[in-house]
Amino acid sequence: MTIDVCLSPALYPFYEQEDDVVVVVDIFRATTTMCMAFSNGASAIIPVADIERARQYKAEGFLVGAERNTRKVDFADFGNSPFEYTQEKVSGREVVFTTTNGTRAIEAAKACKQLFTGAFSNIDSLADACLQAGDRVVVLCSGWTNKVNIEDTLFAGALAEQLMGKGGATAGSDSVNMALNLWRLAKEDPIEFVKPSDHYKRLITHGAEGDAAFCFVQNTTTVVPCYDKLRGKLFRS
Amino acid sequence: MTIDVCLSPALYPFYEQEDDVVVVVDIFRATTTMCMAFSNGASAIIPVADIERARQYKAEGFLVGAERNTRKVDFADFGNSPFEYTQEKVSGREVVFTTTNGTRAIEAAKACKQLFTGAFSNIDSLADACLQAGDRVVVLCSGWTNKVNIEDTLFAGALAEQLMGKGGATAGSDSVNMALNLWRLAKEDPIEFVKPSDHYKRLITHGAEGDAAFCFVQNTTTVVPCYDKLRGKLFRS
Repeated sequence: MTIDVCLSPALYPFYEQEDDVVVVVDIFRATTTMCMAFSNGASAIIPVADIERARQYKAEGFLVGAERNTRKVDFADFGNSPFEYTQEKVSGREVVFTTTNGTRAIEAAKACKQLFTGAFSNIDSLADACLQAGDRVVVLCSGWTNKVNIEDTLFAGALAEQLMGKGGATAGSDSVNMALNLWRLAKEDPIEFVKPSDHYKRLITHGAEGDAAFCFVQNTTTVVPCYDKLRGKLFRS
Repeated sequence: MTIDVCLSPALYPFYEQEDDVVVVVDIFRATTTMCMAFSNGASAIIPVADIERARQYKAEGFLVGAERNTRKVDFADFGNSPFEYTQEKVSGREVVFTTTNGTRAIEAAKACKQLFTGAFSNIDSLADACLQAGDRVVVLCSGWTNKVNIEDTLFAGALAEQLMGKGGATAGSDSVNMALNLWRLAKEDPIEFVKPSDHYKRLITHGAEGDAAFCFVQNTTTVVPCYDKLRGKLFRS
């Protein structure tokens, strides 16, 4: 088994191989929030890349989560904070979801053999799902407007540690060992490690310090969101 | 002053700003070799992106260095080993140069305000040149076929350490601190740190272990290769 790490959606074409299992990650906050929505009973998540498509869904009566640049879009039911997606609001419902970076990464990789979304919230279950799903796993970091970010890279390192440990996976390229080394530096106190980062500062500015801390809590759920190509939706697996 | 780090030529459009000073780096081995060629008296280096263009120059009587996938191209005078570019061969001569990744990175960034090439071979002089050249320095890692690599990232961290230290530069994005942290892990023994990497293994396979070691030796020269947009050539500065 091979694991590779792709640090930006714009680089995915250079990492892409047939039969890839892709783990899309957007720690702050899209994929953490998806875990929360499924954990609280959402029946499906419909990722859409642009705001106008989300607005159409809203007009059709769907619940809509929409965020741009850390803020909730005006017409949406939710922004991108995991704590908004309560059981009361999402249980049994389909949720349309568009965020600055996370939905773009799903778009980039949706032709792959199997696409999961990952976060610290579901890392152990996700690792197990990856080990069963295929011979090559690519962690696709959503980054920030196609730039590399630290929090997604740390998650890639954490997942690599599990797959190389219990799964005996080998590294597909240098970025795996880069992510792994950074994770080992950060794992004792990841929040402290990401404090100088751009996105952490943006979250603090928007009062989302609690969200940021929650995004590094491991295994709050066993749900593994899985993309269904035919229906264009994420379901729990 | 701001420093940023771009981990692949394919990501440069997302990091590009007006008035950037760009440092192109390809530690194994293009930019290390350029330092050696200038240090041994080459009068200019003409970077070309494709083999056919290099072949035309050869037919016109130019010295040509050409490498693809770690091997010298058949018609060329030199491959990509710094030790081939001896004073006897290159002193006073213009050298046409094309390599797998390094010349592609120059191509991606050549419209910038000022373009230097950097390597551990010239790091101190390069840092001084950067401090004088502008308010924003972007280290552009050549990577490997647009994938991220460890050796260029380590150099980005080493240069960031100098510019943030003596220059008081601040980090433009997360990749700066990622590179800096990796460099701090690696600096005591960088060769040991890069041993698991793809490119190091390729060099060993081709008998270039000595090249790899030399590529981490700091300050063998004070030359800073600088790109002249009008003439499409690198000169010493």
